Parts: sequence; structure tokens; C-alpha cells
Amino acid sequence: MNVVRTQVLADATLSKKMADAIRMLSLDAIERSGDGHPGAPLGCAEIATVLFTRHLKLNPANPNWFDRDRFVLSNGHGSMLLYSVLHLSGYEAVTIEQIKSFRKLGSICHGHPEYATEHGIEVTTGPLGQGFANGVGMAVAEEHLRSVLGPDIVDHFTYVLAGDGCLMEGVAQEALSLAGHLRLGKLIVLWDDNSITDDGSTSISISEDIRSRFRAAGWQVLDADGHDMEAIDVAIAHAKSDSRPSLIACATTIGRGFVRLEGQRGAHGSRVFKEDTEAARERLDWTSPPFVVPENVLAGWRSMIEARNGVEYRAWQARLAGLPADKRALVERLAARELPTGWEESLRLYKRSAINLPAQPSIQSSGEAIASVFAAIPELVSGAPDLEGPTGHKRELRAFAASDRGGRFVHYGIREHAMGSMMNGMAAHGGIVPIGATYLAFSDYLRPAIRMAALMGVRSIFVYSHDSIGIGQNGPTHQPVEILASLRAIPNMLVMRPADAVEVAECWEIALARRDGPSSLILSRQALPPVRRSHTDENLCARGAYVLAAAVGGPRQVSLVATGSEVSIALKAKRLLEKEGISSAVVSMPSWEAFEQQDEDYRRSTLGGADTLKVGIEAAVRQGWERYLGEDGIFVGMTGFGASGPGEDLFRHFGITAENVVHQVKRAVRSS
Amino acid sequence: MNVVRTQVLADATLSKKMADAIRMLSLDAIERSGDGHPGAPLGCAEIATVLFTRHLKLNPANPNWFDRDRFVLSNGHGSMLLYSVLHLSGYEAVTIEQIKSFRKLGSICHGHPEYATEHGIEVTTGPLGQGFANGVGMAVAEEHLRSVLGPDIVDHFTYVLAGDGCLMEGVAQEALSLAGHLRLGKLIVLWDDNSITDDGSTSISISEDIRSRFRAAGWQVLDADGHDMEAIDVAIAHAKSDSRPSLIACATTIGRGFVRLEGQRGAHGSRVFKEDTEAARERLDWTSPPFVVPENVLAGWRSMIEARNGVEYRAWQARLAGLPADKRALVERLAARELPTGWEESLRLYKRSAINLPAQPSIQSSGEAIASVFAAIPELVSGAPDLEGPTGHKRELRAFAASDRGGRFVHYGIREHAMGSMMNGMAAHGGIVPIGATYLAFSDYLRPAIRMAALMGVRSIFVYSHDSIGIGQNGPTHQPVEILASLRAIPNMLVMRPADAVEVAECWEIALARRDGPSSLILSRQALPPVRRSHTDENLCARGAYVLAAAVGGPRQVSLVATGSEVSIALKAKRLLEKEGISSAVVSMPSWEAFEQQDEDYRRSTLGGADTLKVGIEAAVRQGWERYLGEDGIFVGMTGFGASGPGEDLFRHFGITAENVVHQVKRAVRSS
Repeated sequence: MNVVRTQVLADATLSKKMADAIRMLSLDAIERSGDGHPGAPLGCAEIATVLFTRHLKLNPANPNWFDRDRFVLSNGHGSMLLYSVLHLSGYEAVTIEQIKSFRKLGSICHGHPEYATEHGIEVTTGPLGQGFANGVGMAVAEEHLRSVLGPDIVDHFTYVLAGDGCLMEGVAQEALSLAGHLRLGKLIVLWDDNSITDDGSTSISISEDIRSRFRAAGWQVLDADGHDMEAIDVAIAHAKSDSRPSLIACATTIGRGFVRLEGQRGAHGSRVFKEDTEAARERLDWTSPPFVVPENVLAGWRSMIEARNGVEYRAWQARLAGLPADKRALVERLAARELPTGWEESLRLYKRSAINLPAQPSIQSSGEAIASVFAAIPELVSGAPDLEGPTGHKRELRAFAASDRGGRFVHYGIREHAMGSMMNGMAAHGGIVPIGATYLAFSDYLRPAIRMAALMGVRSIFVYSHDSIGIGQNGPTHQPVEILASLRAIPNMLVMRPADAVEVAECWEIALARRDGPSSLILSRQALPPVRRSHTDENLCARGAYVLAAAVGGPRQVSLVATGSEVSIALKAKRLLEKEGISSAVVSMPSWEAFEQQDEDYRRSTLGGADTLKVGIEAAVRQGWERYLGEDGIFVGMTGFGASGPGEDLFRHFGITAENVVHQVKRAVRSS
Repeated sequence: MNVVRTQVLADATLSKKMADAIRMLSLDAIERSGDGHPGAPLGCAEIATVLFTRHLKLNPANPNWFDRDRFVLSNGHGSMLLYSVLHLSGYEAVTIEQIKSFRKLGSICHGHPEYATEHGIEVTTGPLGQGFANGVGMAVAEEHLRSVLGPDIVDHFTYVLAGDGCLMEGVAQEALSLAGHLRLGKLIVLWDDNSITDDGSTSISISEDIRSRFRAAGWQVLDADGHDMEAIDVAIAHAKSDSRPSLIACATTIGRGFVRLEGQRGAHGSRVFKEDTEAARERLDWTSPPFVVPENVLAGWRSMIEARNGVEYRAWQARLAGLPADKRALVERLAARELPTGWEESLRLYKRSAINLPAQPSIQSSGEAIASVFAAIPELVSGAPDLEGPTGHKRELRAFAASDRGGRFVHYGIREHAMGSMMNGMAAHGGIVPIGATYLAFSDYLRPAIRMAALMGVRSIFVYSHDSIGIGQNGPTHQPVEILASLRAIPNMLVMRPADAVEVAECWEIALARRDGPSSLILSRQALPPVRRSHTDENLCARGAYVLAAAVGGPRQVSLVATGSEVSIALKAKRLLEKEGISSAVVSMPSWEAFEQQDEDYRRSTLGGADTLKVGIEAAVRQGWERYLGEDGIFVGMTGFGASGPGEDLFRHFGITAENVVHQVKRAVRSS
């Protein structure tokens, strides 16, 4: 490698051209698309060049190399920086044609980077701060996997390029605090310190000493001229050699080379016109036509990357091949994101035993169910934002800590948002299936991360306790009423609200088996009586909804459709209705999304036909229930926020009782 | 005052009893309720006693005194601390009977404090970090109003009591950074520094130097023994005299006096039993029975508060009375949260002129509409999280800054969550009507604050631009599809999505006139053609939905119900359907919540009867639309996340076009 490196670096002109290639590719693409963000690609060209050609461990021929360094562009609006760099590095999918269609429908060069590790995009970024916290999660994954698999197999860095906006966001503030606490020494954040945000000078909204802030959290802080490649090179080398996470403040000029606007607010997201690319060509002494990278420049990029990584990659493959069969199989399984064969067994045993459990909180059942597979699925990493006690998903796991990298429970502190984004980073990194448990009312705190999990389609598993007014006296701040609806509204989010321990076990099996998206388990603090009293091998929750108790004494007149804690209310209502000579069936409906996947026959036979009165029972707002209840249906639930009082009092106060269900059904039956 | 103060303070036993009164009232109430959080009330008894009896400017006989100091209990789980203190201070509503019914349905002593300034509760708290950021917003309100009304009328402090959890939250990290930048010297945060969180020692999840972190942001940091009343007294005096915001780190023992658990994790939220209250009585040498406060202790509290505040309050009333009539009227108007008479006029003029506007983004129309009332409504304070340019709600306003307190636009920086919580603090403070503008996709970042605004019922006005795939090339990270549904799911949130500049003006009038809750205006980045081409004095949006274009050539067969940017698609579809001989009406439906308030006749006549085919058109997910479309209705919208491409391409790609509406209507009409 040194030969090539020496040759290339000896040629100062070539080195400069290697960075300018990013500038010109980005400007040409942004001009062509008529829209984009030139500020970061131009401002960070030297940073990216040094990082990719001199430090990053990667293999463009095998982008999913398990032990590659991870690179996150947290300031995702600078997406052309990433596409340019991936093309220059030799990622085959990122062709000039793709770059020419930047921001066009169908291009892999989307407006913001979208999760696609197969061509070098580690996470979706754009909403500021997310990428920073994703990177912290990736660094946790790396530390843990290194301790489990050994440094011969896992030993890489996580690099994050972040702008001022990313650092201002609360999610990054939470994540950096935890990163310092956990001493994530292989996390290196390159700060595009250009003193400009969308509104103008950063001095408009911040005068904080950012270096001191990071030092206060236990970070190493370094400074470098962001346009001086040697200085950046030295800083990264320093960062790599320190046991603390490192922030490298790279002083840059936003949009450098965007002659008309460089160094100005306008450079961030202005349109680029032909005159601008021409002015840049002249300024940069760039003679090639648009979208053409000179041979020697491309060769410089690729030879340096190959020279440094080729040997490393082959050596890693050799080490992998040299592993004992079982350990190699483990690595290959984790890299393939496959769960171990037979992982479901202990969960199914728990389900079998659960029919005999007494009434207990479904959050407790969830803790028991997941504990049963911790041993079988070593990649499960649980955690909670300071609610380990009330959520109970730590069990026998040791805490992940600076002093214990083998720990599998992350104490996130009171940092819900960082938890969500870090989970996404762990899931995207691979080798980890992250679980995070908090109260449903606080899911709003991590909602931007939840949305990204659904958009990326990663296997982040969110466990939410305290799911309704059933929590009682803590009052409306802690009582979700709208949050089930708001989670169900998110595309690709699988929401499940099990009614008892058996359904909890079934829902966990669904969540763990799901490969292409996140799951949300909605669980109660209050004890729930068992509703599934006989065992069946079939996973009934996988259907989304099913007839839990069929109508007796005549054809079904009424369908009582309920979820979670309200299923037992439906069962009681059924008994009371029978006394009134009204026959009803109880439908347990743990998951709308799963139910929507069933064919129409199943859906109709489960809910009942047009002449069946549908009653929805859920201690939450009605929104969306109309779909299952029809125009004449009845909904028994919440119409506003909760109140502070004992849970049973609240269910009575808000009329979510079997008696009220019966009352309303009788009125409807009479009037029909 | 000095006489009383000297008398009371000379009696060391009495001073101690005054703090212990908080402990015993809290313990007795928590024991009686069978549930609660003793840790903070017991740990912070001395802090609260010193603050209320020696510093806080308040008048229990007039809790809404406009110039009172504001006190926020950010660690809201310690609610009994607040109720005890309010009772001891003499707030009549907070009786011993109310305290005895702590956490019972109907009591004003809710599990967590709920916004009720009429008895001394300045904001609802519980979700951690919110109160801290509310306090920063209150301090902004105070600085601004002091500059506008003069220090004779407004000159008070904002005190926040916060725990470790509050400080870890991203929202507090964002808010403290901005508070330092804005040099909010009248903001004083008392940190309950007890080194314990729910999971145990804070060392489990944080090792940051919190003092350095605050200093890095420009705060004064002081230390005090949280159980030494003289030390607390001195620290608060120091804090008041400094021009920077101050953090007072009060070293405390959690649950001090809760003999069984004091200083331990369990003290935070454990049940309190009779043995515990008895042990506390013995430890504290407290001889009175439960819920009884010794006369001299009560007298100590009230005499000190009266001695210090009585004179101040009367002097303030005298200064108010001495004001010129117009200025006094202004103060009284602001205190009463009334808008100035005639405030609507300029907005209505804008509406009148809007029928002649060309197609333009509704976010632009919103900026124009609100600019028209900035002069008429001086209490409007606008702001944005670094999106002032693309949202355009600054207009001619000056920035609020350390150097310009008269400024009415807050540059929040890239801190959406702090913006939302600060807005709530400003709205709760009174004298300010806060407006915050960002992209709809980023509303998730402030969602916890949005929920609190709705729960408190404060007039925070959220302006959201970039409301759909219409934004085009920035792609799915920036394209909301689920967020309309998730906002509509929140009780007491008024969501409005106007279709053109006329509707924008009407929606602004509704939002500003609303006194009992927040509003969300959902606006487009892309240009929207005008749909209201003739003027009407009536505010049609106030009905939630209305017939924009009636059916012609026969009775209405189809109702095309649309919102915002899709209304013009509905109008085009109507024209196409007429060519096909199908008569349809276009219903513009800017607000579901407002429509739900209309009587059934109006709703039926607007949407059409059972035999009218309903078609919902909205570039978002279907959730909730079933309610208006019925079982046979059609929905034309999104089923998943968006994509990166030009907006027009995306509308075609996802089938949100007049042609597709016609296609589906024809199929439905044929099959029926």
C-alpha cells in the first residue's frame, strides 16, 4: 500500500483533483437535477477524500463485508457527496448514469441517502441528528460483537460526518452524552464546522462552546483545517488511536468552489446553474466535460482504496475460513441476518406454559417471553431509557458498559430519542437485533427514530408498556389515548397489542421473525386475565385477528372486536349478552397490519358479514376503527385524554366496561 | 418584611419544621393514595421552602398576578411537593381535603401537576425535560414583555426545579443551549442533584460533567447543599444577581425522611405505608397527626410570604393604576389573554384580496396572511427551527436576541423539540401567542410538546410546510404521509389543511381566535391554484368542510372530498366526470375536528346522503377517512412512504390524479 500511497500523495495536483472530482460530480448532478444541496459536497470534499482513500476499511466489490468500517452521512442533504464518493471508490451500482439521474424517480441516487448497504449506504439520513445517533448505535454494536466474536473478526471504526444542525439536535446531544459514558473509542465524528446554517450564521442561534460540551461528556476533541488533507489525515490518525470517542472539528467553507455563493448561507441548498458549473470548472482548473472523471483521478481513488483494503480483506477472509466451523457458521449467520435454527422453540414452550399463568401485566409476560429466547438468540440486545425496573426486559442480562462489552442490556439513561436512533444504528449495522422498552406515552420522544426504522425497514423492536388509562393514578401525561392510532398510521410499522401471555408469546415470535421492518409491542401495566386457556400450535396472532370465542345459541348477531386489555371486557360482555338472548362472538385483534394481509374471506368470516353488528372496544381513540366497524358499528373507547385516578375507576368513568358495551348493543339491536 | 423574616429565621426549629411540613404532608398523602413518588417531595423540601418563603414573588390571593415569578416543577412526578407548598403558601383551592384525595378522580391534586394557573400550577409536567424547556420559553416571554411593557409592569424570575432525568433529555439539552445563547438571566434552574434515577445510580448511564456542560453553553453554575436552607438562600441570591441563566446544583438525598429507603433507588416511586409515615414522624420529631400542620408552622409560611409579597403586590397594582389608560388597557388585555378588538380586520382584507392571487405555495400565503396581523396583534411571537427562509413567517419582524428583547421572531436553531416546549411555556406564561413554523415531516421532533399543548389546552400555533409528496425531490424522509393522521389522532388538536390563500386566511382567523387549545396549519411547498374565486364574508373553513363546487346537471351522484393541495385535483376530476355524464360535488374539508362539531344535518348535506358515492382525496394515508367515505367509498391517496422525484411525477406515480379519480369513480358507478 505504501508504494501506491506514496506515488499518489507525492502528486499534489492529483490529490487535489481527487477531491475536486467530488465537487464537479456533485455540481454537475445538482445542476442537472435542477435541485439539491451543493453546500456540503463541496465543503466536505477533502474530508471525504482523505477518509475514503486513506482510512476507511471497505471493499467496493463486497459492500456488505461484515467487518467494514461504517460511514454515516448524518447531514444527509449532502447526499451527492456520498454518491460521488461511492462512484469514485468503485461501488459498481453507483454508476455515472445513476448519478446523472440524481433525484429522478427510480434512481438509486435519491434526494437523501436511503439505506442500501449493498451499495454502501449504511443508513437513511436527512432528518438531522439521526445519523449521529445511528453512528453511536453502530459503535455499540461493534464493541459488543468484537467482544463476542473476537477482534480477528470484528474490529472496525464508525465514522460520522455531521453538520452544525446535527449537533444542535437533542437526539445527538443525548447520544453524545451516552457515547462518552460508554467510552466508544472507535466512534469518530467529523464535524463540518462551517459556521453556516439555513438561516445564516450559526451565531444567530448558538454561542455554545461545542468543543467544551463534547469534552464535558468525555470525548477527545481535535481540530483540523477541513480543506487541508494532510491535517485531516493526521487528525483521523489521532482519533483512531484514542480510547475515547473523538470529535474532529473540521473548519470548512460551505460550498467551496460554488463561486457565486461559497461561504454563504445560499450555498446550502441553492439551485446550481450552468454558469455555476462553468465557473467552478474554471476555478478548479477542471477541464473534463460534465460527469467525466479523468482516468488518472479515478485510478488514484481506486488504487489507494485497493492498495489499503485488498490485503486486509483477504486476510480477514482467511481468518474467517480459519475459524472453527461452529464459530464461522455463527459469523455467517449474523452477517446474513438469519436467526439461529430452532430459535422459536423456547418461545413456544413459554406459550404452552402460559395458558396456566394467573392474571398478570402483559409487560411482565413480555419480559418472561423474551427472557426465554435470550440464550437461543445471542444477537438480542435489550435496553431501556431508565425504565428497566417497570418494563423488566433486562432479566439476567448483564449491562453493556465501558467495562463489560459482552453485556447485552443498554442503560440508555433518560434518553428515549437516542435509544430509538441507536437501535436503528445497531439493526442497520447487523449482528444485533435491538429491543428497546419504555412507556407507550413516551414513544413520542423517539418518534422520529420510529419513523426512520419503518422507512429503512430495519428490525428494531419497540416494547411499550403502560399502554392506556389502565395505568391509573399517574394521570393523562402518562396515559396514551392517541398513540396506538399514531403508530398504526406509520407505513411498514407492525403494531401488536396482545391480550394475554399466550398472545404475547405469539407476537414476540412474529416480531423476531420479521426481517423487513420494525415492530411495536403494546403492553399493559395492569394485570390481564388469561383469555387463551387451551393450547394451539398455530400462531393465531399472525392472522392479525381471530375469533377467540364463537357465538353460541344461534347465528352471530354481534362481533365484539377488541385488543389487549379490552379483550377480557369483550368476553364478559359476551356472557352478559347471552343472558339477554343476544349471541355474539369475541374477536381478538392484536394487529391491524397483519389482519390487512389476510384474504377477504378470512376477514369477513372473522369480523362477520354485513348483517353482524360490529363493536370495537379499545381504551384509545376511535380513529381508524371505522374501517372494521362499518357505518352502523359501535365504538367503546376514549374520546379525549385520560384522568388521574385508579385504573378501575377510570374504565368505569370513561364507560369502557362490559356493562356499557351491553347497554349500547341492546340499544342498537332495539333500534334496528 | 425583615422583621417577620428575622423572627422566623431566628427560630431554627421553626425553619426546620416549615420544610418538614412538606415532607409530612407529602408522605401522608402518598400513603393515603397508595401510590405516588415520595423521592422528590422529601428530597427537595428545603429547596422548595427557601424558594417559596424567601424568594418567590407571588400572591396566593391572586394566583394569576401577571408579574408573579413563575415556578415550574419539571420533575412532575414530585407533584406532592407542589401541592404541599401551594397549601402551605395559602392557595385557597389547594385545601387539605384536596390533598387527602391526591390521585383520586376529581381531585385537583392529580398524579402529575396539571396546568391550572388559578391555583398556582403554571404548566402540566411529567414527561421529563418538558418543564425545563417550558421554563426557557417563559423566560423568553418575560424578557420580551419587560422590554415592551417596561420593568414597572413586568420584571420577574422563572424558576425551574429539575431532576437528573430532565437534564438528560434532548429537549432540555436543546433548550439550555438556546437559553445560554439568549442570555436569559432571569432563568434559574434548581437541579435536584441526588445521583439517583429509576434504574439506580446515575453512574449507570451518565458520567458527563454536567456543570461544565452548562458552562459551555454560557450558564452560571452554583453549588449548594440541598438540605442547608441558608446555603440555598445564598445561591438563589447569587443566581438572581447574575446576567446569565443560572444552574444551582443542589446536592440532596432522595426521599430524605423516608427512613426505609432514603438515598436509595426505591425512594423514587415506592409505595408509602403506615410504618413509613410513623418512622418519618419519629425521625422528624413530628407530633401532629396526619394532614395536620401546626399553627405556628403554617403561620411561619404565610407570614413570610405575605411580609415579602404584600407590599410588592400593592406597589405593582399602584404602578399599573398609574399607567396611561391605553397602556393599562394593553396590560389588562394581555393578562386576560384577549386579542385586541378588530384584530381580524387586516386578515379579512387579506382574504378579500386573496381571490385574485395567482397559484402560490400555501406556506407563502400563510406568511402573507400572518404578516397582515403582526401589527394588530403585538403579542404574536413567531419563530422557526432554522427554517426561516423556506417557511417565511419572519417577514419584517426583528429577531429576539440578547441584544434586542423587543424582537418578535425566535431563531430556535435546529432544535424543533425545544421550540415546541418553549412555545408552550410562552403560551402558558401569557402575554404571548407563539407561532412556530417547520416542515410537517419534522413535527415528529416536537411531538411530545405538541401533545402537551393539546393536553394543557394552550394557544400554541404550529405551522407546518412541505406537507406531502408535493415537495418532490427531497424524498421520503421529508415527505409526510402518516403525519396528518397522527396529528388528527391527538385530542384537542385542531388540524387545518387549507386549499388556497383564501382558506389559509380563514384558518388563521380560526387558529388565532381559539383560546382553549393548539392549532396545526398544514401547508404546501408547491404552488396551489386558487379554488375560492369569489369572496364571501362567512368563514367557510370554520365549518370544517363545505361544498366548494355543487353538482350540476342532475342530482349529486358523487362527492369528491379533498383537503389542501388535493382540492384542485378534485375540481379537475369534477369537470372530467361531467364530460362522462356523472354529476359530482367537490367538498373542501380543511378540518375534520371542526366538521365533527357541526350538526348532523349539515354534515349529511355537505357530504351527501347514503346514496352518494364518497371519494376521499388526500396525499396521505387513509387512516380515519373511512368515517366519511362509508363502506363503499373510495380513497385516493398514499399507501406507503413516498419517493424521490419531481412532485408532479410522484403524484402520477402514486395515482393521486384527477384521471385516476375518474377511473375509479367510473368503475364504482358501473359495478353499482
